Amino acid sequence: MRLRNIPGAKDELKQYPNIVVHDPSQHKGSWKKVFNNENPIHVEVGTGKGQFLVGMSELHPHINFIGIEKYDSVLLRALEQVKDLDRPNLKFLNEDVADILNFFNKGELERLFINFTDPWPKNRHEKRRLTYKGFLEMYEQILVDGGEIHFKTDNQGLFEYSLESFSGYGMTLHNVSLDLHRSGIKGNVMTEYERKFSRKGMRIYRCESKFRS
Amino acid sequence: MRLRNIPGAKDELKQYPNIVVHDPSQHKGSWKKVFNNENPIHVEVGTGKGQFLVGMSELHPHINFIGIEKYDSVLLRALEQVKDLDRPNLKFLNEDVADILNFFNKGELERLFINFTDPWPKNRHEKRRLTYKGFLEMYEQILVDGGEIHFKTDNQGLFEYSLESFSGYGMTLHNVSLDLHRSGIKGNVMTEYERKFSRKGMRIYRCESKFRS
Repeated sequence: MRLRNIPGAKDELKQYPNIVVHDPSQHKGSWKKVFNNENPIHVEVGTGKGQFLVGMSELHPHINFIGIEKYDSVLLRALEQVKDLDRPNLKFLNEDVADILNFFNKGELERLFINFTDPWPKNRHEKRRLTYKGFLEMYEQILVDGGEIHFKTDNQGLFEYSLESFSGYGMTLHNVSLDLHRSGIKGNVMTEYERKFSRKGMRIYRCESKFRS
Repeated sequence: MRLRNIPGAKDELKQYPNIVVHDPSQHKGSWKKVFNNENPIHVEVGTGKGQFLVGMSELHPHINFIGIEKYDSVLLRALEQVKDLDRPNLKFLNEDVADILNFFNKGELERLFINFTDPWPKNRHEKRRLTYKGFLEMYEQILVDGGEIHFKTDNQGLFEYSLESFSGYGMTLHNVSLDLHRSGIKGNVMTEYERKFSRKGMRIYRCESKFRS
């Protein structure tokens, strides 16, 4: 997600260390201590302005959520939504997903969300797609055995690619929906993009992809 | 595919034993003899009125094609398209796909096509869907190692189900298209259904699914 640069964004994020965790590598293997409970941890990679995790963390108080977003000006919007709330089960990292192995231990996460991520449509940028096999290898290392990725996008090409990438990695697909908002699903929390695109009548694609246990 | 019953259809099919092969189990393991060459064999299950295989067999003279269709009144329409042509690389079987293991030996087929098959949308009919795991088990036995299924449908629910079924069976997905006729593909041979549905602007879904070798 691109957004104009907001001067001072990085400094503002630093003022809320309880929400935007500094130097996350120091908590590798001990996130349950950070949350001060034994609840499962779900991570969203490329969390954008945070609407999805703000909604999910309200709906599911017994799950801990961490959103990773590299653009500080974007993550600032997420912070603004929650800085005045009491939402102890939601944290953000102002980091690059490519560094995710530095932040979590083997099996430390229960589930991963990828929502409306940059499709990087050019072939030569394949390795940047968050569903590229190089990323799947990393996700597998930090998820529990049989852990799941829940994936949503409006981008047809990225969805086609990701189905191939997931299956090519030996993952199994579940609850595939090729038109989420006409499927009668319940409990769906919308992202900013999703609200915008589905209002325009565009299809939202979704699937769950599970690592072999 | 349903069609009104045509009296005498079965008798008419019997008049062309070079095209509609009787008692296919007698050729199990020796289809190359039937075709009198060593070319690869591709099978379409649920071949309907045969438009797809009639087109494919013309485009690919060095591949042998066999279409399996259980309704004689439907298969009669296929026969009518080719009975006056010289098309030695195309045969039909008036049989039930559920009996397919009786007709082919292990590894005897190179590729399988499933086009616009009955979606059997009710859960209790899952086992009748031609992409159900019970059918995949059979297909795997008669295909070469790493053999492929090429699948097309206009039915969103069946496509979603089939992606789950293929990946659940450990197959890998390739060339997934969620809107075939807007994808710029070449060499696509249309079925009767496909022509009708795509003219109405409906999406055609397609994928290739490969058994592990």
